[in-house]
Formats: sequence, structure tokens, C-alpha cells
Amino acid sequence: MENFRRIPSHIGIIPDGNRRWAKQNGYEKKDGYEHGIMPGFALYKLMLEYGIKEATFYGFTKDNNKRAPDQRSAFTKACVDAVHLLSGKDANLLVIGNTDSTAFPRELYPYANKRVHFGQGLINLNFLVNYDWEWDLNHLKEQGKLASWDIPRVDFIIRWGGRRRLSGFLPAQSVYSDFYIVDEYWPDFQNTQFLDALRWYQDCDVTLGG
Amino acid sequence: MENFRRIPSHIGIIPDGNRRWAKQNGYEKKDGYEHGIMPGFALYKLMLEYGIKEATFYGFTKDNNKRAPDQRSAFTKACVDAVHLLSGKDANLLVIGNTDSTAFPRELYPYANKRVHFGQGLINLNFLVNYDWEWDLNHLKEQGKLASWDIPRVDFIIRWGGRRRLSGFLPAQSVYSDFYIVDEYWPDFQNTQFLDALRWYQDCDVTLGG
Repeated sequence: MENFRRIPSHIGIIPDGNRRWAKQNGYEKKDGYEHGIMPGFALYKLMLEYGIKEATFYGFTKDNNKRAPDQRSAFTKACVDAVHLLSGKDANLLVIGNTDSTAFPRELYPYANKRVHFGQGLINLNFLVNYDWEWDLNHLKEQGKLASWDIPRVDFIIRWGGRRRLSGFLPAQSVYSDFYIVDEYWPDFQNTQFLDALRWYQDCDVTLGG
Repeated sequence: MENFRRIPSHIGIIPDGNRRWAKQNGYEKKDGYEHGIMPGFALYKLMLEYGIKEATFYGFTKDNNKRAPDQRSAFTKACVDAVHLLSGKDANLLVIGNTDSTAFPRELYPYANKRVHFGQGLINLNFLVNYDWEWDLNHLKEQGKLASWDIPRVDFIIRWGGRRRLSGFLPAQSVYSDFYIVDEYWPDFQNTQFLDALRWYQDCDVTLGG
């Protein structure tokens, strides 16, 4: 196990490239999502091993619901399966998303907007499911706090799939996040990609503007 | 002049690395800022040439005010000088920042929170001066709209100085911005850096989540 001088407390994960991976491997686009579940589990174990205290996974957004119905079913199922796979392990789970919409999966109601503690609770795992940055900021406007208020500042964001943008990921919490881009698609997750990211992060000079 | 298939409408500029440049070149840290003014003017001319319609420059933030007094004076003066240099040209100027604080320079009051039109008004140029992302979001909470409501969504953010983070730059407007990092420090600005960035941008696949 590698030693790092400095480890992020809270990591944001943008697991992009499922559809491009599917196309590249001769599947239908929708079939990419189910190949993204085991990578998430592998990453969870790796984060435990390296003492990461909190991680937020970008599940799907309101904008993603514009996609074809078979893709919507597939990414929704993948989110539900991922949360179920991690429930009962040593993690505290929290799902943040707009539950007032039918796009929010009923299976995840038990975790919606309240954290559920499992086992030794070694890590906080948050999932953005039917999330929408405008919905999040509207809560601030109308109810005086973010819908995602229970998710703290994100130190480090790792995005798979080569794109260099946030795509609406927690705008208030990512103001000081350092970004790392993995060019490979998410279903091609490898432990080494995460370790490369941590190695890069330990040399980031954090000033918070000072 | 190079032809691009696709040009961003609104570019965010994070001109970082002034102090590291000063140190590298045998100056005092504070002396870096004045070497960042002519690069901004060169970039303005280049943006006009390529038909960019709007640009937002990250001047300084509330957090930057934690720095040594001589640095504070220097970056404040550099912001004032940059705005003065561009006033009277063919640009519409707008300064967004917290004017309730003494850290906001009086010389920029005429441009504060209202756009001032000059000449042919070929480009909108916005400057964030004594800006603070929390102050911006607090306006949304308390007054129903962002303090920066007059600045539209940013398509593309170019950051000089190698760091890969937003550092609080317009969190609501940068949700879908593509990021490009220039490793060189801002006072070492070269036209080619900007053209490389535009070349990269034209191949970004914009989906807005769909």
C-alpha cells in the first residue's frame, strides 16, 4: 500500500463515459451503465483502504432524464443497484435528489435526504440521484439552505471519461475542489487510475485564496 | 487568422501565477501583479479579433484580502489600472464585487454592478473585484437573485498558472463550463496559449447532460 503525504477528506466522483464505453465495446448505449456498478464497488473498497472519510458519487441528473427511455431505465437501475450493493457494508449512505419527481426511484426513498448508518460506518457515501444544480440553489433561495446542505465541501473531484467540466456537480461545495481527469471511460476503472489521482493531489498547493 | 468551427460566447479568465512569476524572475511577490495588466490588454484585443462576445476576468476575491498589505495594494491597483486601460475602448464594462467593504476600490464605483458602454461596444467585459462566492450565493438567499445575476453562463474557463480548480469563480455560471489549464504563469501570457485553448474547445462535445 502506497503512502501519501496528504489525502483528501472528501472526494467527488464523476463516473462518465458509460455510453461511449458501450459503443466502443459493441453494446447498446444503455448497456454501459450496468458495467459501472462493480467499478464503484472496487473504488469504495480502495477508498476505505486509504482512509478516505467521505465520497460523493454523481449518479444522474434531471438533465440526464432527457435521454432515451431505455437509457433512463438503465441508469436509474444502476444507481439503485449500486446503493443496494453498498447498504449493509461499513458505510453511512445518503442520497440527495429531487424526490418530488417520478424520476426519483422509489427504492431509494429510505436513503433520501437522510443518512442511514451501516456497520462500523467507516466512510460517508453520498449519491446524487435525480439531482439538479438549479433545484439545489433554489432551495437556498426559497428555504434558506441548499438541498444538499448535508454534503460538506469537496476537496478533490475525479472525473472519468475525459471531459473537463463539472456538469452541475454540487456548485457550492466544489468552489475550491481540485480537478483530476481520467481519460478512460468509467467502466474501464482501474485501481491505478485512483492512485495516480491521489499521487497528483498530494502536491496540490491549497491556499484557499490566501 | 485561424478559423475555428466553434467559438465560445463567454469566456472566464483566471489569471493566476503573478506571485510565482515574480519570485521566479527575481522580483518581490507584490510586483507580479503590474506585469499582469498588459497581458489582459493583449487578450482583449485577441478576443475582439476572434469575435468573442463576452469575457469575465477574475480580479481579486475577499479571500485574497488575507494576503500581505503590500500585495493587497498591488493587486487592487492592477485591477483599477486594467479597467481604466479598457475604458474608452470598444467594450462594455461591468465590475461585480462587494462594494460595502473598504477593500473595494473607490475608483471602480462607476462600473460597480452596472454596465458602462464605450465606443462600439464590441464585447462585454466583466471584472470580479472584491468578489466572494459566498457573498454571491447569499444574495440569492436573501434577495432572491445572485449578486452576479447580470453575468450569464460561462462556456469556457481558461486558467493560467497550472492549478486545476475554480477558486470560487462564479459557481452558478460555471456549472457547464469546459476548463482549460495553461501551465505558464499569467504574466508570461502568449497569444498562442489562447489559440491552443480555442483549438481544444472546438472539439468539446457539449451535451448539457442530454
